[in-house]
Amino acid sequence: MANHNIETPNNPSYRFAARALNSSHASHAAANDLVELSGGYAFPRCLPDISMEAGKAAAAHRTETMQYSDVLGLEELRDQIVDYVAADGIVCARDNVMVVNGAKHGLDLACRVFIEPGDAVIVTAPTYMTALSILRTHEADFWAIPQDEQGMQADVLEQRLAAAQSAGDKLPKLLFDVPDFHNPTGITTSLERRHELIRLARRFGFVIIEDDPYRRIRFEGEAVPPMKSLDESGVVIALGTASKILAPGMRIGWVIASASIIERMAAHKADGGTSPFNQRIFLELLAGNQVAHHIAAIIRQLRIHRDMMVDELRRHLPEASVHVPQGGYFLWVELPDDIDADMLAGLAIKKGVKTYSGRLSYPLEPSRNALRLCYSYEEPERIRQGVEALGEAFASLRTGEVDSSELEALADASLKLQTF
Amino acid sequence: MANHNIETPNNPSYRFAARALNSSHASHAAANDLVELSGGYAFPRCLPDISMEAGKAAAAHRTETMQYSDVLGLEELRDQIVDYVAADGIVCARDNVMVVNGAKHGLDLACRVFIEPGDAVIVTAPTYMTALSILRTHEADFWAIPQDEQGMQADVLEQRLAAAQSAGDKLPKLLFDVPDFHNPTGITTSLERRHELIRLARRFGFVIIEDDPYRRIRFEGEAVPPMKSLDESGVVIALGTASKILAPGMRIGWVIASASIIERMAAHKADGGTSPFNQRIFLELLAGNQVAHHIAAIIRQLRIHRDMMVDELRRHLPEASVHVPQGGYFLWVELPDDIDADMLAGLAIKKGVKTYSGRLSYPLEPSRNALRLCYSYEEPERIRQGVEALGEAFASLRTGEVDSSELEALADASLKLQTF
Repeated sequence: MANHNIETPNNPSYRFAARALNSSHASHAAANDLVELSGGYAFPRCLPDISMEAGKAAAAHRTETMQYSDVLGLEELRDQIVDYVAADGIVCARDNVMVVNGAKHGLDLACRVFIEPGDAVIVTAPTYMTALSILRTHEADFWAIPQDEQGMQADVLEQRLAAAQSAGDKLPKLLFDVPDFHNPTGITTSLERRHELIRLARRFGFVIIEDDPYRRIRFEGEAVPPMKSLDESGVVIALGTASKILAPGMRIGWVIASASIIERMAAHKADGGTSPFNQRIFLELLAGNQVAHHIAAIIRQLRIHRDMMVDELRRHLPEASVHVPQGGYFLWVELPDDIDADMLAGLAIKKGVKTYSGRLSYPLEPSRNALRLCYSYEEPERIRQGVEALGEAFASLRTGEVDSSELEALADASLKLQTF
Repeated sequence: MANHNIETPNNPSYRFAARALNSSHASHAAANDLVELSGGYAFPRCLPDISMEAGKAAAAHRTETMQYSDVLGLEELRDQIVDYVAADGIVCARDNVMVVNGAKHGLDLACRVFIEPGDAVIVTAPTYMTALSILRTHEADFWAIPQDEQGMQADVLEQRLAAAQSAGDKLPKLLFDVPDFHNPTGITTSLERRHELIRLARRFGFVIIEDDPYRRIRFEGEAVPPMKSLDESGVVIALGTASKILAPGMRIGWVIASASIIERMAAHKADGGTSPFNQRIFLELLAGNQVAHHIAAIIRQLRIHRDMMVDELRRHLPEASVHVPQGGYFLWVELPDDIDADMLAGLAIKKGVKTYSGRLSYPLEPSRNALRLCYSYEEPERIRQGVEALGEAFASLRTGEVDSSELEALADASLKLQTF
């Protein structure tokens, strides 16, 4: 019998498509007891106990939950999502909602509907690293627009769009952004900037993908209306997810867009419909208000995590500049110019803590000296230990006690770690 | 506040990608108490009660099932799948297995990895209608190869491949087939034909996608080894699914292929990993042998369904030719030449039964006179009623008692119904 695990000399050299990048897949975190400050995992003690709802979905709703379901999702869940986003000021109807397997899946479907290979997508620099991976599988080109404390710099974008238009160049098809507690910087886009981006989308004919997983994880400050709530002409596709407000393992997300966009995205949803079992469980938890209680518990917990991380960074990396976000999962740590973040992240692993070099978040030319830290997964005491270990790595780099070839090997190893 | 449900004159004319077909999505069956003989739904009384395993997955395995998981799937489940397919003679290892959200999802990922727009894919004519939809979203061209009682006609295919090669034409990249209890014809490909197709794949450098959802649903006769078990050089990608052996609502499927193909497919799996909650439940049911017991129950039940449908077709449509399959979900009914299947399917809806015109299963020029019937969903007595109603529709067509403009309207309406 043939053993398919062994690559033999007989093996064909497969004629892969151009878009079939040989990129490696995400590997699970928390190996080797490293302190996990990289991936955006849920806090384990806040993972919900859904056993009651799961049992009910499996038994009382069996003919719904074990069967095929509509590719758009359960009507009851779509209506619940209409209500959920109405609290943020988004007015929509069931026809504007499609259930998907997480927000990433929604982004992927939007790419299929809007991008041809070589089309440009506007993103902040830095931006969400996994969004970049997905966009790259669609052979997107990037327009990397800088960010300030108000969000994506709309004036810079407008100049570039106007110049491209004057020159008769092809204009971008999509803009991707995380306007609330941006990944990785934690910045929340201002109201004025949101209006500006919508104005540009209308003027230059691109569609905005508003990826908003962290919106409800707000520790303090005033929420800004979602771009989708300001969108009178259907240029915004809003992506939401159960991952950050309930549990990533549910793999439930949603897309809110004009009915004509939803219809085309549905035609590309080749998964036989998102699991109605998972949908029914999530819908019962939404309807029963358990999701709201769960969000409150996450906020209480993660505020402590954020504060611990900020305090410890000030103590152990006093030379670094930290943007303190009002919510979300991430801290963006800017290092002194002479510190190489790849090397720091590599050395930090040796000291026992896993972080991401900011380089992974850049679409084009990366900045060399920033780190993305995530405070969602670890207990506060482990966060303290992790930042202390990061401080030790920083001090070792400063004193030059590690030789440069070892540093480069460590940096390479750390860049191979992937993403959420 | 903007109402996004209303398409206003302000709405942009979206610059959709060429592949963003405006095809409609699958709608759920069993509306209006029609007898459902079209879609491949699970038999409701055979849907499993998974509440015990679901409760355990939710509680005892909470940190696994509620969290993100590896994009390739849970290692324990991948090992269980290795064991499951070993019973069919497929020798593989964990690295050859990726968990996906149903077999359709696996097909979609294979398309992303192997097809560029305009590349040709070899299929039987007729073939699985939803596979055609997925292939069309990737802008595939089709090579439609006829089928006989042994399966796809390898000699016809070989002549065409050789001619294309001689002419210097581009050769196909993929072959898609359902070799066991073919959808829609119910034919099982012979062993000799399987060897022939693998030989052609090696000679002409294409990859075979072996979609095998129905393999274990065998009522009688000897099983033929899967193509994957005969594949010594890694040219076969095998797709499996929990949908037909446990429950479609789980949305669990798998891909078995060479490690280099699996790695590339994983890079395109933009769903954040298949739900570990669903994976854990399925894995416990596989490991505890409940899946095997469940398959036995499905076989006992569906054999009765098939027999009922065959008997009633002989009684009520004696002019039709029926291929009696040894397993699976479908019957392929060939009608006399002067009967238009679109009109028959349309008229049948008016009589109270939903079937699919065979036309939906053709990649290119459709045959006009075949129906696909599915016996999986309805109770035997309802199948009897449905076939009786179909016979009435047939008789009405024969006698010419329905005027042709009404028939055409009914045919159009029935073709809008979609697919599994």
